[in-house]
Amino acid sequence: MEEAAKKIMAKIIVLGAGVMGSAFAQLLADTGNEVCLVGTFLDQDIIDSLLADGTHPGLKVRLPENVRAFSNPELENIMDEHVRLIVFGVNSAGVDWAVARIGPFLKASVPILMLTKGLAVQNQSIVILPEVVEQGLSVYGLNRVPLAAVGGPCIAGELAARRQSSVVLASQDTGLLEVLLSLVDAPYYHARGSTDLVGIEVCAALKNFYTLAVGFAAGQLDSKGPAPNGAFMHNLAAGLFTQAIAEMRYFVQLLGGQNRSVSGLAGAGDLYVTCQAGRNGRMGKLLGSGLLYRQAKSEHMPKDTIEGAELALIIGSTLKQLTEGGKIDKDAVPLALRIVEAICDNQPLKIPWDLFYR
Amino acid sequence: MEEAAKKIMAKIIVLGAGVMGSAFAQLLADTGNEVCLVGTFLDQDIIDSLLADGTHPGLKVRLPENVRAFSNPELENIMDEHVRLIVFGVNSAGVDWAVARIGPFLKASVPILMLTKGLAVQNQSIVILPEVVEQGLSVYGLNRVPLAAVGGPCIAGELAARRQSSVVLASQDTGLLEVLLSLVDAPYYHARGSTDLVGIEVCAALKNFYTLAVGFAAGQLDSKGPAPNGAFMHNLAAGLFTQAIAEMRYFVQLLGGQNRSVSGLAGAGDLYVTCQAGRNGRMGKLLGSGLLYRQAKSEHMPKDTIEGAELALIIGSTLKQLTEGGKIDKDAVPLALRIVEAICDNQPLKIPWDLFYR
Repeated sequence: MEEAAKKIMAKIIVLGAGVMGSAFAQLLADTGNEVCLVGTFLDQDIIDSLLADGTHPGLKVRLPENVRAFSNPELENIMDEHVRLIVFGVNSAGVDWAVARIGPFLKASVPILMLTKGLAVQNQSIVILPEVVEQGLSVYGLNRVPLAAVGGPCIAGELAARRQSSVVLASQDTGLLEVLLSLVDAPYYHARGSTDLVGIEVCAALKNFYTLAVGFAAGQLDSKGPAPNGAFMHNLAAGLFTQAIAEMRYFVQLLGGQNRSVSGLAGAGDLYVTCQAGRNGRMGKLLGSGLLYRQAKSEHMPKDTIEGAELALIIGSTLKQLTEGGKIDKDAVPLALRIVEAICDNQPLKIPWDLFYR
Repeated sequence: MEEAAKKIMAKIIVLGAGVMGSAFAQLLADTGNEVCLVGTFLDQDIIDSLLADGTHPGLKVRLPENVRAFSNPELENIMDEHVRLIVFGVNSAGVDWAVARIGPFLKASVPILMLTKGLAVQNQSIVILPEVVEQGLSVYGLNRVPLAAVGGPCIAGELAARRQSSVVLASQDTGLLEVLLSLVDAPYYHARGSTDLVGIEVCAALKNFYTLAVGFAAGQLDSKGPAPNGAFMHNLAAGLFTQAIAEMRYFVQLLGGQNRSVSGLAGAGDLYVTCQAGRNGRMGKLLGSGLLYRQAKSEHMPKDTIEGAELALIIGSTLKQLTEGGKIDKDAVPLALRIVEAICDNQPLKIPWDLFYR
């Protein structure tokens, strides 16, 4: 890593010490940066563990020495003129908090890179999180903060284990993209740049949501079992996977993103990896086994944040309104509407086959 | 099924009694057709079993009574004027044989539906199998036989168990598409039509080939084991999956197919399902664990037909020539070239990360 350390060596603040923020902090440290990993008010246990012996309890790795851990109140002390990049590693519910926390100290020239994935509703429209950040920062007189985001198939635990991972960094600012690509240039991290911030962000958010449906197949298999001839239900899962990609393409186009992103790392790639492991797939499996959402959540995953379900709860009623008002073509997103019904209205998830693959 | 039986009721010959031909024969029977399942000269054991008690030994199901099994020599006796459709259920190596077998008896008005997947080389070009069939039939003075093909995520054993499956039927003849869609209209079989025969066929063939690479990730995991923090290698698999889709798109465009097919059932959908189970993934896993192809084949899968590897052996040298001659952009298909090296030249499969995601 010594050569990389000579090449760059930036002071970077990662806000949020959850698994993704912390794994990303290690990546930045590996490439020679000085990283300050700042916990949110919910992360104190993690920070305590990191301060004690460097171990991240969620990632189960010891972070390198050039990741320094700080508690939430220490943020103001380290927000000095040397900071070259802010990374948002909070979850989607923490974006407003992160903006409020960083706003008073931020210089407009320091870019923000968002690991946080999600969508939000503003003025009865569905918007990407960088828009929320932009609006939030304007309250602090910050109007031109350069924004970027990461998409693609990157499970945090694997990144923390330095296993081969491929991502796309997205920003409308191509100069920023170049800087960011150099900051994360590690041999196990294959990053490419894209200017399609909208497409990448829409895909990154929706892959969690649609994984609920792909996971449904595993739940059906669980409850019905293999067929007498030993057959599973891979065809079912693959059909749902394909419809998910088609609907993601519709949403990406609708919000102004590019088709290309949907079949790339942030779309098909991240949907693929999300379907292989994780909480969204697990919830989908519970739904597929016949449980209703609220029961599945309270009995089986009471403490888990299920990002896909959270997204359904955030955008669900708006999605229905936009569909009813004709602003979203209901025939283009039949699976999304059923997922919303399953999560928001606690209905059984039924697969509307006749409406698929149009 | 009674209503379907009234609606249609065609005599259909399925040539090839392997797992896919036979599962498809059952589907056609379920929708009320009279199906003659004719074994190739390699299928006599299967035909014997079907004649004895209706059981297909590979599918492990008992086929319905309106699938009647016939030995290869009986073909001429059943090729009468009532035959409405021929289905090719042979594997890719059997296409020339199937054409030679059916050619002398076929009427030009009877369409052929191809379940067979693969690509071939003609005049130093890579072509889809329907082109091979078309050329082969012209020897018999048959110049306008309507051709169609099936793509999409459909594991034969699951189809045989009547589990939900989604496919795309492709033909440049839209009238034929309509007929075929009505012939396969079963509640567990979700078929859509497409006129992109080239795109569907290219995807259907290449998904086996690229699954060798996605399976590589599982082999790497097998040999290196989970990381100390418990992390697997899903990110690696998803990265390879994404690059595979990008290269499939290049090949589809090159051969004159449509982009849309690549992110649909025949492309992303079928690649997804093929990566979940089957022989191609198993061979990929062996390669990922560090074995060279020839050793992996002879020691672990001596009797298996690995369609993706067969395809590499068929198109490998042509692909290299076309790349060297500049007719194929080598930077567009770096993974394909490494797979070809691994299979044709018995080299270790190395992942050219720097060339990915361009």
